[in-house]
Amino acid sequence: MEQFSVTPWEIKGKVDYDKLVTEFGVERVEDRHLEAIRELAGDLHFLLRRRFFFAHRDLDLVLEDARAGRGFFLYTGRAPSKSPMHIGHIIPFIMTKWLQEKFSVNVYIEIPDEEKFLAKKVESLEEVAPYVEQDILNIIALGFDEDRTFIFKDTEYIAKMYKPAVLVARHINLSTARAVFGFDGETSIGLVFYPALQIVPTLFENRRPLIPCGIDQDPYFRLQRDIAPKLKRFKTAELLSKLVWGLTGPETKMSASEPETAILLNDEPREVRRKIMNAFTGGRATAEEQRKLGGNPDVCPVFHWYSVLFEEDDKKLREREWACRTGSLLCGECKLELAERVVRFLEEHRRRVKQAEAKRDKFLYDGKLAREMWNWEFRE
Amino acid sequence: MEQFSVTPWEIKGKVDYDKLVTEFGVERVEDRHLEAIRELAGDLHFLLRRRFFFAHRDLDLVLEDARAGRGFFLYTGRAPSKSPMHIGHIIPFIMTKWLQEKFSVNVYIEIPDEEKFLAKKVESLEEVAPYVEQDILNIIALGFDEDRTFIFKDTEYIAKMYKPAVLVARHINLSTARAVFGFDGETSIGLVFYPALQIVPTLFENRRPLIPCGIDQDPYFRLQRDIAPKLKRFKTAELLSKLVWGLTGPETKMSASEPETAILLNDEPREVRRKIMNAFTGGRATAEEQRKLGGNPDVCPVFHWYSVLFEEDDKKLREREWACRTGSLLCGECKLELAERVVRFLEEHRRRVKQAEAKRDKFLYDGKLAREMWNWEFRE
Repeated sequence: MEQFSVTPWEIKGKVDYDKLVTEFGVERVEDRHLEAIRELAGDLHFLLRRRFFFAHRDLDLVLEDARAGRGFFLYTGRAPSKSPMHIGHIIPFIMTKWLQEKFSVNVYIEIPDEEKFLAKKVESLEEVAPYVEQDILNIIALGFDEDRTFIFKDTEYIAKMYKPAVLVARHINLSTARAVFGFDGETSIGLVFYPALQIVPTLFENRRPLIPCGIDQDPYFRLQRDIAPKLKRFKTAELLSKLVWGLTGPETKMSASEPETAILLNDEPREVRRKIMNAFTGGRATAEEQRKLGGNPDVCPVFHWYSVLFEEDDKKLREREWACRTGSLLCGECKLELAERVVRFLEEHRRRVKQAEAKRDKFLYDGKLAREMWNWEFRE
Repeated sequence: MEQFSVTPWEIKGKVDYDKLVTEFGVERVEDRHLEAIRELAGDLHFLLRRRFFFAHRDLDLVLEDARAGRGFFLYTGRAPSKSPMHIGHIIPFIMTKWLQEKFSVNVYIEIPDEEKFLAKKVESLEEVAPYVEQDILNIIALGFDEDRTFIFKDTEYIAKMYKPAVLVARHINLSTARAVFGFDGETSIGLVFYPALQIVPTLFENRRPLIPCGIDQDPYFRLQRDIAPKLKRFKTAELLSKLVWGLTGPETKMSASEPETAILLNDEPREVRRKIMNAFTGGRATAEEQRKLGGNPDVCPVFHWYSVLFEEDDKKLREREWACRTGSLLCGECKLELAERVVRFLEEHRRRVKQAEAKRDKFLYDGKLAREMWNWEFRE
């Protein structure tokens, strides 16, 4: 049996999601959840329909809170690094934005601008600084509500976060932190403290938090669920996604630091086309063979990308799958079409990034929620 | 041989200062240091003359900086707990204030208002809050210069400290922190990070810091001296004191949580007199015996207190010692006199605490140095 491991710092091997559900102690997203969301939201995002968000904690309770009018709030984040965000990074934000729109709730977005430095993935804070600003604009560009969304950098918002972080940290012993995060002797004491800062935003409101994120982030929030009752706050709910495949193969990791695996949000059209045309597919060795035997979309990163980002229409996705399996759609054509969709998406996205610049300060400092949060104090 | 251990969290057993000097790798204060200080300052504080500040790091370099006009800056601190400061706690501040006055330098005073909570010595931050304010006033009352002194609480000044703390933390691995501070599995991850915050003030100026403090605090600054060159800052200098004896015996610990060992700054006169009259002394079993054989000031906490706080005059101190040794001064009289001096000192101190209230904000927010520090940013 293949070995794999999933931690917030690293994903190794081919992930077995069934095993992960058991190991992490999360629950599968069931039909009843999707029906309830459709009923409340009037609609169901394809990332939910297709169970890319496949697991959860306390999703039933969130839906009950929504139904009863108690509401909830959304929280997610992005740790800037020394390269731009890639297309997989935007998925939790797409999900979060959709939930904000459908449920009219507040969204908190943490930008832990110190985390990669403390994790020794970059050599200085200066190296990260330009990507901090790029990432913020990329996130705003996805369409969040400027008066219901607060985006905050750790090194700035620490003024408000440190006190509650101290309360959280008091409840996390070194032995727990080592067991949950795998810290060792080489780990910086700053990274050892960092989980407290990732937990603090779950305490921002006296309502249930819901965190749309990759399942690799679950360890933080598992810990939050032990601590929250001690601080008289809600255990956080989670809506957990699988990890997007890289272009280099099924179940591979998309990584901004390995350019061939990913499309970066600032890749030029020529670069996008080149990478996608070079992608691994579920196709056969020759066109002739493929026409005869068909391709295999189950192991195809190109098909995977259509399904998680570039084909919203279920019927069209099924048609594409059928055409592939029956050999009537060849990989060249399929990749070309994906490349064009990605190029169009990035063009549109960049247009929105331009517009985001003017709105940036609303999200960070003077939109309705941002203003509230700069006056916020944690009260037990 | 008796076992002892000295860490920032706990002092156990009878401290052997000679061994500690070797173990910590610090140096003894020598005659040449005292001569140089007297020459530069025009005077020599009795805590220096009597070598209560007995050890140092880089004191020669500080004196060279002073002589050459490059200057230096002073830094010390006080972690508030769930009881008032005792009389031993003010000694580093008395030394610091004297140095400020003589050398006209800036003083930074850290109030780590989260530390005792993270160290699990108190159960909540609320429990500490009243003592935070009391401690600040007690410190101001010792006579610091309001335009050259910045007093800051960690939970407030974290806004400015977190970024440099991240830079410091990156250079402290968990294995080092465990070795230096003895952290174990039960230690809060907040306390694991805390050393970075105690190191940050040594980076406040591009000059050499000098830290007057008890030798138990040396581990933090030993670590600072490894890290500072990586951040292009000065290795800190230290002026290290012995630990004041408790009233219960020679080389015992004065502890605010064991009231019989210490005089607290808010003890009533009746309480002061009772505690001192009950103190352990170097006296004999009976007055008759003492008149015949004399007392032993070497093991007497009462004599110790005269020498570190309540008799500035060397000649008078020698006379008292002689009178004790020869049996002409009995313990009752000697204690009574100490009690009256302590009562007078506390009365005067409280008067100054009252005056300090009006000046408090100068030290924290709007004195000359405080204003500068609220605009300060760490630049490498």
